[in-house]
Amino acid sequence: MARQARAIQTRTSILLAAAEVFDERGYSTATITEIIARAGVTKGALYFHFSSKEDLALGVIAAQLELGPLPAQRTKLQELTDQGLLFAHQLQHDPLTRASVGLAMDQWSESGENGEGGNPFHGRPFQEWADRLTELLVEARKRGELLPHVDPAETAELLSGAFTGIQWTSQVLCQRRDLTRRVIAMFRHLLPSVAMPQILPTLELTPERAVALLASRDAALEAEEAEDGEGDAA
Amino acid sequence: MARQARAIQTRTSILLAAAEVFDERGYSTATITEIIARAGVTKGALYFHFSSKEDLALGVIAAQLELGPLPAQRTKLQELTDQGLLFAHQLQHDPLTRASVGLAMDQWSESGENGEGGNPFHGRPFQEWADRLTELLVEARKRGELLPHVDPAETAELLSGAFTGIQWTSQVLCQRRDLTRRVIAMFRHLLPSVAMPQILPTLELTPERAVALLASRDAALEAEEAEDGEGDAA
Repeated sequence: MARQARAIQTRTSILLAAAEVFDERGYSTATITEIIARAGVTKGALYFHFSSKEDLALGVIAAQLELGPLPAQRTKLQELTDQGLLFAHQLQHDPLTRASVGLAMDQWSESGENGEGGNPFHGRPFQEWADRLTELLVEARKRGELLPHVDPAETAELLSGAFTGIQWTSQVLCQRRDLTRRVIAMFRHLLPSVAMPQILPTLELTPERAVALLASRDAALEAEEAEDGEGDAA
Repeated sequence: MARQARAIQTRTSILLAAAEVFDERGYSTATITEIIARAGVTKGALYFHFSSKEDLALGVIAAQLELGPLPAQRTKLQELTDQGLLFAHQLQHDPLTRASVGLAMDQWSESGENGEGGNPFHGRPFQEWADRLTELLVEARKRGELLPHVDPAETAELLSGAFTGIQWTSQVLCQRRDLTRRVIAMFRHLLPSVAMPQILPTLELTPERAVALLASRDAALEAEEAEDGEGDAA
């Protein structure tokens, strides 16, 4: 059990180090040597967990997607805007999230030098985000939260694409310092074309909301772990 | 006069070749040697017009921004949506436009390898697009086309950021084949939060519009050239 816990810890340190190095250098110029040094692990330990640089990058992307669901809210549209606010917050504060988006957007990665247009991570996370948002919007439709003409897949695709560009321009212009403000402006412009009029005033769209959400998620996770512990003891 | 025309032609061939090579390889892996070969010019000719690879890239970006104004429309909001539709069309069909956006979005270009986060083209075109859209929206406001609460700079920033991400995801997922459809969906979602209700039904947002706009712009340019010719003769 202690060995398993240590293995999980090593894997996590490697992923965090890899995320930082990818975030700072980009995929093509990052080296495994630097990731090993940053993580403070042996070469053997790294290759025990990850077979290649590409494997490490896939691990970083997967870790970001594993962040777990947020606490349920009164409306599915609140959950949808919460996802956006939280994602903006994580991009500002979490190297894993930043590296994951960086990997997905890296245009000319190593394998692209043969002219094949080759980032192997391209597309995947964007399709995955659009799929998640579609699911949320389909749920929102079932609950009567959407205007009748809304096509969930089309709106999800728009949100995913628009968010991608908004976080990107915010990064380029000011290191994402104004990202939360920009994401709120996006939702304020888009929601009147999506939500039933009576839902609009119930939606909480504030810069402080992401931190509150994280606190309540952490509290929920801790409660769950405490329960699991009891289960083990029984 | 013949010599000047030849020089302009040479400069244009070099820019088109550079745009193609930047578009295919990205900035960092593109070489001047390849651009010279592609353009079919001598090294001397290239260095007569452009002092470096960075200078070539700035030339590509400037050429894209020079495309010239579109014919005036009944409303400023129609002109704004026309800009979006035309930009989507050019991204699908014009290597100069594609290369310009590619250069602006290239994340880890040569000068970035020192960890300085260094693409020298970053930000500029995005700020420039946002500024142009702000001007159009300020004009639209003067003409009574905007809802009272609209902040032109905020809406322009949103349109510029959202468009950036939409064209990017469309490129990654399907080589921009569905870009026009995605841009129309963006405007259909956003405009009700921006335009006075009586303006909305007057806006023409069709996939065919970009080609019609280009034809009328070319006709206007030809008419202008014909006039200039007459002026020379007089």
